[in-house]
Amino acid sequence: MSTSAAPQFVGQHLGKFVADAKLADIPKAVQHEAKRSLLNFIGGAIGVARFPAVESAFKVLNRFSGPRTATLMGRSERMDALSASFINSVSSNFLDYDDTHLNTVIHPTAPVAPALFALAEENGASGADLLLAFILGGEIECRIGNSVSPGHYDGGWHITATCGVFGAAAAAAKLMKLSPQQIWDALGIAASEASGIVENLPSAAKNVGVGNAARNGLFAALMAQEGYAAAPAAIEGKNGWARATGHGPVLAEILGDLGTRWEIAKNTYKPYPCGIVMHSVIDASLELRDKHGLTPQDVEHIIVRGDALLLARGDRAVHNERDGRVSIHHSVAAPLLWGKAGVAEFSEDHVMHPDAKALREKVKAEVDASMPRGSARVIARTRKGATVEATVLHARGSLENPLSDKDIEAKVRELAAMNGGRFDVDRIIAMAWDLDRLPNAGELARLTAA
Amino acid sequence: MSTSAAPQFVGQHLGKFVADAKLADIPKAVQHEAKRSLLNFIGGAIGVARFPAVESAFKVLNRFSGPRTATLMGRSERMDALSASFINSVSSNFLDYDDTHLNTVIHPTAPVAPALFALAEENGASGADLLLAFILGGEIECRIGNSVSPGHYDGGWHITATCGVFGAAAAAAKLMKLSPQQIWDALGIAASEASGIVENLPSAAKNVGVGNAARNGLFAALMAQEGYAAAPAAIEGKNGWARATGHGPVLAEILGDLGTRWEIAKNTYKPYPCGIVMHSVIDASLELRDKHGLTPQDVEHIIVRGDALLLARGDRAVHNERDGRVSIHHSVAAPLLWGKAGVAEFSEDHVMHPDAKALREKVKAEVDASMPRGSARVIARTRKGATVEATVLHARGSLENPLSDKDIEAKVRELAAMNGGRFDVDRIIAMAWDLDRLPNAGELARLTAA
Repeated sequence: MSTSAAPQFVGQHLGKFVADAKLADIPKAVQHEAKRSLLNFIGGAIGVARFPAVESAFKVLNRFSGPRTATLMGRSERMDALSASFINSVSSNFLDYDDTHLNTVIHPTAPVAPALFALAEENGASGADLLLAFILGGEIECRIGNSVSPGHYDGGWHITATCGVFGAAAAAAKLMKLSPQQIWDALGIAASEASGIVENLPSAAKNVGVGNAARNGLFAALMAQEGYAAAPAAIEGKNGWARATGHGPVLAEILGDLGTRWEIAKNTYKPYPCGIVMHSVIDASLELRDKHGLTPQDVEHIIVRGDALLLARGDRAVHNERDGRVSIHHSVAAPLLWGKAGVAEFSEDHVMHPDAKALREKVKAEVDASMPRGSARVIARTRKGATVEATVLHARGSLENPLSDKDIEAKVRELAAMNGGRFDVDRIIAMAWDLDRLPNAGELARLTAA
Repeated sequence: MSTSAAPQFVGQHLGKFVADAKLADIPKAVQHEAKRSLLNFIGGAIGVARFPAVESAFKVLNRFSGPRTATLMGRSERMDALSASFINSVSSNFLDYDDTHLNTVIHPTAPVAPALFALAEENGASGADLLLAFILGGEIECRIGNSVSPGHYDGGWHITATCGVFGAAAAAAKLMKLSPQQIWDALGIAASEASGIVENLPSAAKNVGVGNAARNGLFAALMAQEGYAAAPAAIEGKNGWARATGHGPVLAEILGDLGTRWEIAKNTYKPYPCGIVMHSVIDASLELRDKHGLTPQDVEHIIVRGDALLLARGDRAVHNERDGRVSIHHSVAAPLLWGKAGVAEFSEDHVMHPDAKALREKVKAEVDASMPRGSARVIARTRKGATVEATVLHARGSLENPLSDKDIEAKVRELAAMNGGRFDVDRIIAMAWDLDRLPNAGELARLTAA
């Protein structure tokens, strides 16, 4: 496996690309999107860090932790770098409130960022180096994801976990300054670690898949550093990962325009902790309340119109919190009742509140083939016989209507408040925007401790 | 997910089966086969424990080890239970000299036994309990393997790793006395951890897949114990593990005759550390030497006849140790030159020895459609013009011609000697045969320390 000749294998190309990449060659807009991803990630990790599911994972790994070099974001305890990677990944992705690469539905940051912060706390890597490693890791997971999409997810693979491990391996390998050959090997080792299934998404087992992606990606890089090799074509070979999973890989999606097309620049952030296709319903309902003064008491009935996907995902009976997160009806009720649709408004006590149940019963969803994907129209008939309506073509947080930097800051503040601990959120935010000038990225990780 | 009604899901059936199983209900012959598996496993783990690949894995995990409660077999250091499970699994499987469940080509013991010994060192579980848990874990990995075979391995999945994680989860869960529901959840979590690809088999990345199966299986049980749940149909569901991999599952292979058909009773052990289809070639060559007095100097040329599979696997140029392990020609040369075909005779210096090269050049392989699968005929033409031949229908170590208990003991002694450290092999062997009467199975693990 010599890397001196022209690369022949996917991992060889990627190993060279990652090893050679410099932050100065990456457009400032891409760098800024990466900072937004990292800040959004930190918010999610802090917000969820004391949830029971994180508590349980903590209890298990705490028994086995080695030297406690790494911060558990949003918590007061520390753990070894491998275990902290698992826990921080679980926290940040738990609510599916993290970022989304829309073409693949990968949540790019949860598997990739945790290993980088854990490594930086050990080796004092600079913010610029961490930013670069994150961009490269995110790029590789999304490109490998593109190369097997849409068959991969549709076929039952939880793509955030299965492709995340490649991103984590590449990112960790970069921050560890591994050679092109070692990065190639780390990616090949990751191909033997990629796992996670869609069937488990409504259960806690989802978190194990995502946490393992982060932990095992770092592990792959560490093993490659110690000389562990992998097959040259572990990703694309006849008996390699992609063909074993049954989908792709379309090589041009991985290798085309490397260094000029940046997938991580297409990252998006959710303003609401619920199914992404519900977001336009929420926006339209907020508009009815805030611009038209519609109150729950006014409502005679409400019709929501959207495309077939919206109805397929969201037209359902609501029995619990989980149903609420993918309910068209609750996505109308919550904004009208409480004026917002945050973590609290999608929690069990809000979803099962009698007022929410009563209002949901007045909502009906209808397919409208003229509505484009991702849009929604909410039409309210009032008790006084009036009709008010609002139409949203591009929900807040979509590529066309992205969250502003201030929106992301507000989201981080909301999540940090949810934790209950005290955090210097102003300083976290300032440090994230200034990441490329931070001498030691471990400082940012330590600021997130409760 | 109530387990009070009749089971509906695969994991639910298996959870109940594993939780209810008692050693007294398992035939003595099955128990004895399990002891043979465990003894064979211990030999492999000790023998390889100081190889560079194990050394590298040790260096990586040593940095992150928590409380060092578990023995690394064949070494003087100890590690936490999760890390020791990884390392002992890698050692025991490294040479592919471990056991084989022929229908699936799973190496059953490497992923399952390590977690059990590590747990026993912590909780003082009895030998009888460890034996029972091992039988159940081996049973479940082989049954799940059967349910996706032969498509799974042929499609690129390294079945020892992908199915091993289910076996490790079930076995660990049993030794931890988890409830039927928790075992069901542990298996479902394992479904989100199953990984490992055939493309990586000729590389060190193979070891990561196998080691992770052991480590992650134990992790799944630990998470289930802390309340982590999985989807009810994580194994067989529409978006579950088996369908995502593209093969099966044939449910009758998993659930048929549970408790009466024992797959682990079909385990086999290799007398030679090389490709299993080469074994009849070695036996025939040993017969020519030992019964007919054939020496390398006598040989004019040699013809090996076998079925198409033997030729497909073994008729190749030999450039290194790895080729030697799957070479028909070296499987003739080694026994004739050195009178045996052990680890030394398949090492790089023996495979590349000029005498071996010269003798291999005199060997020619031919397909003979009349030869049954697994058989070989070796026909030598001597310089004096005589012809001697030997035919082996069932190689040593096959189901029809199994290694005796004494053969397995001798194999363990050979492997322990390879390690270079000092071991009380007599006591290890005696304790393994008496496992069901051992008050604390951790004692056996500790005896394997160097």
